[in-house]
Amino acid sequence: MEILAAAETLRVPGAVDLAAIVIGALTGGLLAAREGFAVSGVLLLAVSTGLGGGLIRDVLLADGPPVALTDTAYLPTVAVTAAVTFYFSGWLSRLTGLLVVLDAITLGFFTVIGAQKAQLAGLPSASVVFIGTVTAVGGAVIRDVLLAQRADIVQPGPYNAVAALLGATALTVLAGPLGLPPLPVAALVIVLVAALRVLSVWRGWEAPVALDL
Amino acid sequence: MEILAAAETLRVPGAVDLAAIVIGALTGGLLAAREGFAVSGVLLLAVSTGLGGGLIRDVLLADGPPVALTDTAYLPTVAVTAAVTFYFSGWLSRLTGLLVVLDAITLGFFTVIGAQKAQLAGLPSASVVFIGTVTAVGGAVIRDVLLAQRADIVQPGPYNAVAALLGATALTVLAGPLGLPPLPVAALVIVLVAALRVLSVWRGWEAPVALDL
Amino acid sequence: MEILAAAETLRVPGAVDLAAIVIGALTGGLLAAREGFAVSGVLLLAVSTGLGGGLIRDVLLADGPPVALTDTAYLPTVAVTAAVTFYFSGWLSRLTGLLVVLDAITLGFFTVIGAQKAQLAGLPSASVVFIGTVTAVGGAVIRDVLLAQRADIVQPGPYNAVAALLGATALTVLAGPLGLPPLPVAALVIVLVAALRVLSVWRGWEAPVALDL
Repeated sequence: MEILAAAETLRVPGAVDLAAIVIGALTGGLLAAREGFAVSGVLLLAVSTGLGGGLIRDVLLADGPPVALTDTAYLPTVAVTAAVTFYFSGWLSRLTGLLVVLDAITLGFFTVIGAQKAQLAGLPSASVVFIGTVTAVGGAVIRDVLLAQRADIVQPGPYNAVAALLGATALTVLAGPLGLPPLPVAALVIVLVAALRVLSVWRGWEAPVALDL
Repeated sequence: MEILAAAETLRVPGAVDLAAIVIGALTGGLLAAREGFAVSGVLLLAVSTGLGGGLIRDVLLADGPPVALTDTAYLPTVAVTAAVTFYFSGWLSRLTGLLVVLDAITLGFFTVIGAQKAQLAGLPSASVVFIGTVTAVGGAVIRDVLLAQRADIVQPGPYNAVAALLGATALTVLAGPLGLPPLPVAALVIVLVAALRVLSVWRGWEAPVALDL
Repeated sequence: MEILAAAETLRVPGAVDLAAIVIGALTGGLLAAREGFAVSGVLLLAVSTGLGGGLIRDVLLADGPPVALTDTAYLPTVAVTAAVTFYFSGWLSRLTGLLVVLDAITLGFFTVIGAQKAQLAGLPSASVVFIGTVTAVGGAVIRDVLLAQRADIVQPGPYNAVAALLGATALTVLAGPLGLPPLPVAALVIVLVAALRVLSVWRGWEAPVALDL
């Protein structure tokens, strides 16, 4: 039963993981193309935003080489995505509205995939929330670091890390104390994270800044 | 005997590790609050400065997931510390003098914890010094990278990495060739590192820059 | 046979790995000295450029602590190299032309060492290419991140990541489908990468930037 649940948990992300990675790689590659980067820069940013969060997650979970390296599909998928952004950046840039929505759904997927993998590794709840959030925003942080610009997620602006953090916390509560099955929990959390992200971009919601009581 | 020594070595840092992490998280969170960061930025900087050095250490030692994730106390402690800095940054900022001293002691603790863990992993002396230093300054390096500013430790200024490096070297000599027991060695090294750091801030000592003979 | 081939593969890089690390550490330490960094900065940049690529490689391959920590020679070698650059940066800077050539050969060596290690770990071809490239350019990326400047390899300019990528791809094809023995493949790839790098610096070749078809 325990093992069946685990298998079920992993099979679902496995099927959609690649789609999320394509969206991540697409946003990274597009940014690189717009910045006038060389082909190596487009590849590096596509790899970083598409696979970066998962690489950090798997290095921290310390259960062998990251799935991005052991799975034969991940790196070729990112390379093809990078090639598409390399040649069609102008055309793809017109899809900004669609990309905001796809990117928000990707944020939700990465949160769920990370949190569930940390749960399967038997980590405590706070670490599950941490790994879920890091998986979701890690790629964007690596991207910002490589561009030598302040990590986007530390600054006031639309929910990003905050949406992932709330989603990972919801997942921990729903799947832990409440004991709901993994599939509906995953669906709920993806919708929650994506909705928080899209609404915050659309309505101009900003993560709160430090007060001084 | 060997096992007793190892247990003794680890028990002491375990008891004070959390205090050092609170100080580290406090300085990171305060900096984020002063910079006007969002709540996600305050959390990220508190996690980075409080746990960053230990995360790098444990990833390099490759002995399963980092203790920051397997221990149930670390992440909640950092989260609470971040919340305190989020709401009381103005009040806490008045404690600058105290924070310099506490930060110096933390530098010493992290040096000792890192170096002893590397010794227990059976690494050669140079690696023990390296891991001790990286544990001590790794959090500050991650902080600077996330802020997109030049790593503080590469620039001339009060001893920081230099103090940790000298402390880790002292620990290697005292615990290795001289064979002193771990507890007094740890105490000596913490005092040495903290004193070097505080004195260099107070007296304006600066790490030497490259000469050209 | 399989084991003999593996042993042969590893023995050769083992013998020259240190020379490549000295060159890497030299270029990093020289840069730090020219920037007026403190002794800690010279050490950090020497470690980053000399060992950074290999550290990332070994963390991703997840087969115990990185060889830079378990081998007794690596860190002391880097420390001595850093000390030399610390005291003789002016004199060494006159060797720029020689350093371009040595640096190009080092790029080839790191590519081969990384790719062969990934092959021995049984990773798929795309991951072998990825690890080879990351080993070759990882040190330079860490250096740029610590200096808070845009990663050199993302920007248009002489082949660097592109040379490593082509070399790692050539290695994968020659050693995989074509089944050539590791030694001649290694020699060929090192010459290829070094020649691409030196020629692109000399003739002003630049990696292509994104088009918009």
